Amino acid sequence: RALLQRALDANAHLKHSTFFQLATVGGGGRPANRTVVFRGFQEQCDKIQINTDARSNKIGEIREWPLGEICWYFTDSWEQFRISGIIDVIDGSSLDPAKLQQREKAWFASSVKSRSQYLGQSPGVPVANDDHIKDVHIDPSAGPVDAYCLLTLDPEKVDYVNLKSNQRLMFTRTQEGDEFNDWMAEKVSP
Amino acid sequence: RALLQRALDANAHLKHSTFFQLATVGGGGRPANRTVVFRGFQEQCDKIQINTDARSNKIGEIREWPLGEICWYFTDSWEQFRISGIIDVIDGSSLDPAKLQQREKAWFASSVKSRSQYLGQSPGVPVANDDHIKDVHIDPSAGPVDAYCLLTLDPEKVDYVNLKSNQRLMFTRTQEGDEFNDWMAEKVSP
Repeated sequence: RALLQRALDANAHLKHSTFFQLATVGGGGRPANRTVVFRGFQEQCDKIQINTDARSNKIGEIREWPLGEICWYFTDSWEQFRISGIIDVIDGSSLDPAKLQQREKAWFASSVKSRSQYLGQSPGVPVANDDHIKDVHIDPSAGPVDAYCLLTLDPEKVDYVNLKSNQRLMFTRTQEGDEFNDWMAEKVSP
Repeated sequence: RALLQRALDANAHLKHSTFFQLATVGGGGRPANRTVVFRGFQEQCDKIQINTDARSNKIGEIREWPLGEICWYFTDSWEQFRISGIIDVIDGSSLDPAKLQQREKAWFASSVKSRSQYLGQSPGVPVANDDHIKDVHIDPSAGPVDAYCLLTLDPEKVDYVNLKSNQRLMFTRTQEGDEFNDWMAEKVSP
């Protein structure tokens, strides 16, 4: 996490430095890959937060098969983090009050403009024209809408490469649990 | 392909514009995701070429399960291409003379420096120190070494999003075959 935080700081001047690609496995074992935005770590643990639309295909796919691998390439420092782990889908139907609270917190942490996306049409639905692009107004004090879904990826293994120094490190989590994690690092050939 | 070529041209001033993330599925259905470099289209078709090390884990995984999805995000034009298709692994053991010729062509198309990588240690092997980083010399006229492997991804579906214009298009290939492809486009909600 310290290494990732350093890369985030070093690349903070680039808007796209918080973008990464999340790979999951869909129906029929088809790999799926899309760009998503880093929404910070969950409090008191290393889980990576991602906002998404509960109506997108990936939600059903992730519920079926919750494994994911993030590929995060920092274009300025030439560092790549491949972070694999288990993804938790937290929508409004969650029965865990702590998770619902995290979802609410993540909702209010995102901009009002980004919240208003969840009031638009379902993603991926055919459109005949651009009539669906309307100004939607959202009450800034209103809690998460149904279409808003928080994903958290709990890292288990990280494959780190620095293409400037030509160094590669494999990190493996040696302890399970939310509170804190122990990581083992091994230097491998790039 | 025309849309992708336009994005490549528009982002050509960025070194990383030819980098994309390739997702595949590994052992036990684990998604795997890594940054690779676009090495052009194969001649007379839309197959996307990628150079890789035959000794890397992904080769065995792709032979087992040849489905892949590329996620290619252009950081300057805010365009994303998600390209899914079947991957062909072409190493020196291929029995198809046409494929061996493609591999040789792709080998000579890459820089001498990038060719010399395939003479280094196997990727991902533990290293105790940096003694393995030696100057390797490669004869610029010598053909592909054993460790050099060409991957080609044959696109079947492309999910295109332009985040500036907020437009999304789904392209589906309607005709199979190497020689030429017909594509159907549908406008969908972003």
